[in-house]
Amino acid sequence: MSRLVELLEEFMVGGKRIRPVLAVMGWQAADGTTDMAAVLRVAASLEMFHAFALIHDDVMDDSDTRRGRPTIHRTLAGKRGDDRTERFGISAAVLLGDLAFAWSDQLLHTAALTPAQSAAVQPLITDMRTELMLGQYLDLHATGELTDDVEAALTVNRYKTAKYTVERPLQIGAALAGADTETLTACTAFALPLGEAFQLRDDLLGVYGDVRDTGKSRLDDLRAGKNTVLVALALRTSDAAQSARLRELLGDPDLDESGAEEIRAVFASTGARDAVELMIGDRYQQALQALADSPFRSDAITALKHLATVATRRNA
Amino acid sequence: MSRLVELLEEFMVGGKRIRPVLAVMGWQAADGTTDMAAVLRVAASLEMFHAFALIHDDVMDDSDTRRGRPTIHRTLAGKRGDDRTERFGISAAVLLGDLAFAWSDQLLHTAALTPAQSAAVQPLITDMRTELMLGQYLDLHATGELTDDVEAALTVNRYKTAKYTVERPLQIGAALAGADTETLTACTAFALPLGEAFQLRDDLLGVYGDVRDTGKSRLDDLRAGKNTVLVALALRTSDAAQSARLRELLGDPDLDESGAEEIRAVFASTGARDAVELMIGDRYQQALQALADSPFRSDAITALKHLATVATRRNA
Repeated sequence: MSRLVELLEEFMVGGKRIRPVLAVMGWQAADGTTDMAAVLRVAASLEMFHAFALIHDDVMDDSDTRRGRPTIHRTLAGKRGDDRTERFGISAAVLLGDLAFAWSDQLLHTAALTPAQSAAVQPLITDMRTELMLGQYLDLHATGELTDDVEAALTVNRYKTAKYTVERPLQIGAALAGADTETLTACTAFALPLGEAFQLRDDLLGVYGDVRDTGKSRLDDLRAGKNTVLVALALRTSDAAQSARLRELLGDPDLDESGAEEIRAVFASTGARDAVELMIGDRYQQALQALADSPFRSDAITALKHLATVATRRNA
Repeated sequence: MSRLVELLEEFMVGGKRIRPVLAVMGWQAADGTTDMAAVLRVAASLEMFHAFALIHDDVMDDSDTRRGRPTIHRTLAGKRGDDRTERFGISAAVLLGDLAFAWSDQLLHTAALTPAQSAAVQPLITDMRTELMLGQYLDLHATGELTDDVEAALTVNRYKTAKYTVERPLQIGAALAGADTETLTACTAFALPLGEAFQLRDDLLGVYGDVRDTGKSRLDDLRAGKNTVLVALALRTSDAAQSARLRELLGDPDLDESGAEEIRAVFASTGARDAVELMIGDRYQQALQALADSPFRSDAITALKHLATVATRRNA
């Protein structure tokens, strides 16, 4: 057991901690003054929940790398090829994810929230969990069947990232500070465009990023045949020959760097890459406008503006 | 998504509901009078949590049958042999298990518990979850490496079944009724021997039960090489030839009924099967004694006595 716990500890050191940071910012935006200890504990619970989500996500996608290291199930399975150890890797990773889920809930329940705080936060936690899992399900179904449906890809983004990663953590922090409906709605108005932009940047980094920055092989998403907005746009605007070639290469588990370069060339010549950059810029502006219109405390607005810039222009 | 939810609905129809029943009995034992609605909702949350546990357990053990039907991951994977659909089956089952975990927590949080009830119940819920997962981990580690360590097999029983299935549900119900320490301790004194007896019976049914009664193939546990107390006792008392043969047959994924008969013959000739029956009887008596010594309400004692008899003498 201690081996599993050590793996989880190492795993959690590597994260960007965007969800706990957003929870603290939401609390600040809603003029939170006391109870910093409770907010920090709830924020930690979000990060622990995210460890659960990533560990299971990597099992579902059969990813090899995460945060610059082998994924949990790969570490536990050891060298590829033996059915028995592969199976053990998957099983132990499923179990470690389950433990992280249980512990995230334990952190939440030992945060010494007031009954009013519990009542405000618990429905948001439930929504956050359900939305993530719905997003995962849509993602799972979409993977392996390429589509030029940009709207469908954006819907997955919305659930998996915009709501789960940005909107709910921000609202959870705000709710802990006793936020009213106007403040919670302003959280949404800021979070959804920013979250979509964040995921679109992530999609680009999955294909163009440097593994030394992102900690993720830039072949993983292509090999998995992920239906990103980038892929959907490229399929929609490509000619017959390009489209056929994309369908051949994307989702090929043995795709190499030269195949990846060919895909990148189609993303460039169809204008898909540029279109995604434009979509990111657009959403970034919407997020800034929402901040300007919000009732948030001014120091929180400054911090959220900075975060929006970093999240959409990052290289990791 | 509706496909997954339907699968979960069908899955939940087939259960024995032993944990929710125990929660209600615990509440009754501790003289619960009001709040039946809250107890029922918490009881339902235990059954939903158990659906999560079983779905993930079947993924970890790669079991084919559960409750008389194909397991969730097998249903979702379809016919064996295609790596891609096998993978999808595992992924979607992991996700459906996660959803059941999240929904069990949602049931708990919408049970309208008083702050005092929440404070009494939540630590027990946390313990229950952690103990199950620890039991799963011990089980996972033990599977595939046969041992004659009877104590180790009993430890797994204690976590996976005695505490998770019997002690905690009973205590959770009692805690909802405001049980004092004496009552909670009496729950433990009754639950641990009964839970061990329940699991020992389960081990026997896994090898000798009728699939029409148990809904589980009686080859699964043998093929998986499960380290039950029965197996440990047989290995401890077998001669060299028997032991070698057991180690050859147990854990063989292609084991057929004639191989299983050979194993059963060793369980009989070594006296392992009889020894397990004696252990069950012993623990059954301890559970009855604990009931007699308990401060439980008399109608609850009658109900728990009946349950103890059924749980240790059942054929399903």
